[in-house]
Amino acid sequence: MASAFRPQQARIPPALAIPIPLLTKAIGNLFCFIYRFKIGLCQLAVTPDKERNIKHARKAIKEAAQKGAQLVVLPEIWNSPYSNDSFPVYAEDIDAGHDASPSTAMLAEVSGQLKITIVGGSIPERCGDKLYNTCCIFGTDGKLKAKHRKIHLFDIDIPGKLTFMESKTFTSGETPTIVDTDVGRIGIGICHDICFEELAMIYASRGAHLICYPGAFNMTSGPSHWELLQRSRAADNQLYVATCSPARDAGAGYIAWGHSTLVGPFGDVIATTEHDEDIIIAEIDYSILEQRRTRIPLAKQRRGDLYRLVDIRRLDAHCRL
Amino acid sequence: MASAFRPQQARIPPALAIPIPLLTKAIGNLFCFIYRFKIGLCQLAVTPDKERNIKHARKAIKEAAQKGAQLVVLPEIWNSPYSNDSFPVYAEDIDAGHDASPSTAMLAEVSGQLKITIVGGSIPERCGDKLYNTCCIFGTDGKLKAKHRKIHLFDIDIPGKLTFMESKTFTSGETPTIVDTDVGRIGIGICHDICFEELAMIYASRGAHLICYPGAFNMTSGPSHWELLQRSRAADNQLYVATCSPARDAGAGYIAWGHSTLVGPFGDVIATTEHDEDIIIAEIDYSILEQRRTRIPLAKQRRGDLYRLVDIRRLDAHCRL
Repeated sequence: MASAFRPQQARIPPALAIPIPLLTKAIGNLFCFIYRFKIGLCQLAVTPDKERNIKHARKAIKEAAQKGAQLVVLPEIWNSPYSNDSFPVYAEDIDAGHDASPSTAMLAEVSGQLKITIVGGSIPERCGDKLYNTCCIFGTDGKLKAKHRKIHLFDIDIPGKLTFMESKTFTSGETPTIVDTDVGRIGIGICHDICFEELAMIYASRGAHLICYPGAFNMTSGPSHWELLQRSRAADNQLYVATCSPARDAGAGYIAWGHSTLVGPFGDVIATTEHDEDIIIAEIDYSILEQRRTRIPLAKQRRGDLYRLVDIRRLDAHCRL
Repeated sequence: MASAFRPQQARIPPALAIPIPLLTKAIGNLFCFIYRFKIGLCQLAVTPDKERNIKHARKAIKEAAQKGAQLVVLPEIWNSPYSNDSFPVYAEDIDAGHDASPSTAMLAEVSGQLKITIVGGSIPERCGDKLYNTCCIFGTDGKLKAKHRKIHLFDIDIPGKLTFMESKTFTSGETPTIVDTDVGRIGIGICHDICFEELAMIYASRGAHLICYPGAFNMTSGPSHWELLQRSRAADNQLYVATCSPARDAGAGYIAWGHSTLVGPFGDVIATTEHDEDIIIAEIDYSILEQRRTRIPLAKQRRGDLYRLVDIRRLDAHCRL
């Protein structure tokens, strides 16, 4: 019966299976795949002092690693105040690296030193005459594995409550970003990217175990949508979702909601926090992804004869990840 | 800038605008469009006595109409116990009508009599040698406007908690169902259909004001996912979502969660109830749909250059609704 519905065609190209995690562990003379590991979400207070922000982030990453985190996630725009005036001033040339990008140089150094994976929140990136809101992902060898430039910029106008036009300064990224790390296949979105279910669906169909969304929801969208969106992306796609926000600064021009969270593939909140500075340490177990998908086999029940989601970049690249 | 991202191409065919509601009201010598009206969600107790179920539903619909509801929604499988053994016994030949379908004959009579629109939950439908889980929508003239056969059947296997295979008896529907009524353009899904975000996305791109999901989530999926899914379909698609469940019968083979709910286009719960029999009367105001979409213009921010959702039926029909 199912084949008449063409469930595989509900995703074009067809969905990939979840890969076996890359990390292995020697137990006696056996090498075992590691499905369980700890994630650290560093909800950092951000100040106008960039040097302090970098030092502070370094300290938090070390603390998370000491507590066992093999993957550490930072907030959106953690090295600069979140304002269109600040972005050009705090922006760094990530591709030039070293002195031209002290924020990512620190991430490279500390990830290699501690042998952990870092999803480096985001910082304003300068590239030629353009600015991007960019997340860098570093591997356990300290090397830059991928760079995600925020795809959906945050342009919003709620009179009397909030007006923010990120596109005044930032240019949008041109591609989804998914990366194989020692702690699984991770899709990346930044803040407003989470509002677009298509991005999460694409990552799921590319075999993601986890989607990380560094994000700074505000005092309007935070209470109404932050948890809702995380839980629905996780439940709909039957994967883990991790978010990391800056801590709240009531005196800032843009006030972050906080509430960094880890959500499991049942849409269940595994760990969360309030709005103050905090480091959340929580366990991820990829072995339950298959369990979830066996019990409620959404992928096999989709109706490719009625709807199809096309992943343009993957189609162009002939099924490359 | 936006045009390079081809936001219109994120839906194939391109998304339709929300239509102006059909209902008008004379105020002096002016005819005004009606954006506000009351919806009634009848969370009915269902028994093995079909005749009693029909009488009981009739009474509830009348009560909702007396309280001002211009649109009344019934639960999934409201004329029969929810079990694979019962479905063939309680099934009716809807197309033959009259005595062959006393449940829908009642809906036709009462909708015309009261001049209200009814989204008639669902009943087991017999058509030739097949059975469907079918929702009938009746207009204010008492005529059958559309029939939705559940597209995604509920096949689930959670050992020790819940195993149910609806596909043992039911055949899946072959098409999404969206209908223009006096109270707006309404997309229909039945229960497990809500788990597939693609269906809601298709309805939104066909200009739906509201999606109605008669549904009988259970004591496992109810607490974990019922509200989450309703709220996320509404928020992601910036439209109203209404659900209607049977009341809970702790002695039944399949125990319904209850909690019928109306959710607004901000993902906000407007009205809900617990698990006992109840009639929820709540106000819908379509004028806030445009407001929501202007403030957070998701449709204009989508990246048709990166992903596209194809509505196969609408594409085949050359853009027919």
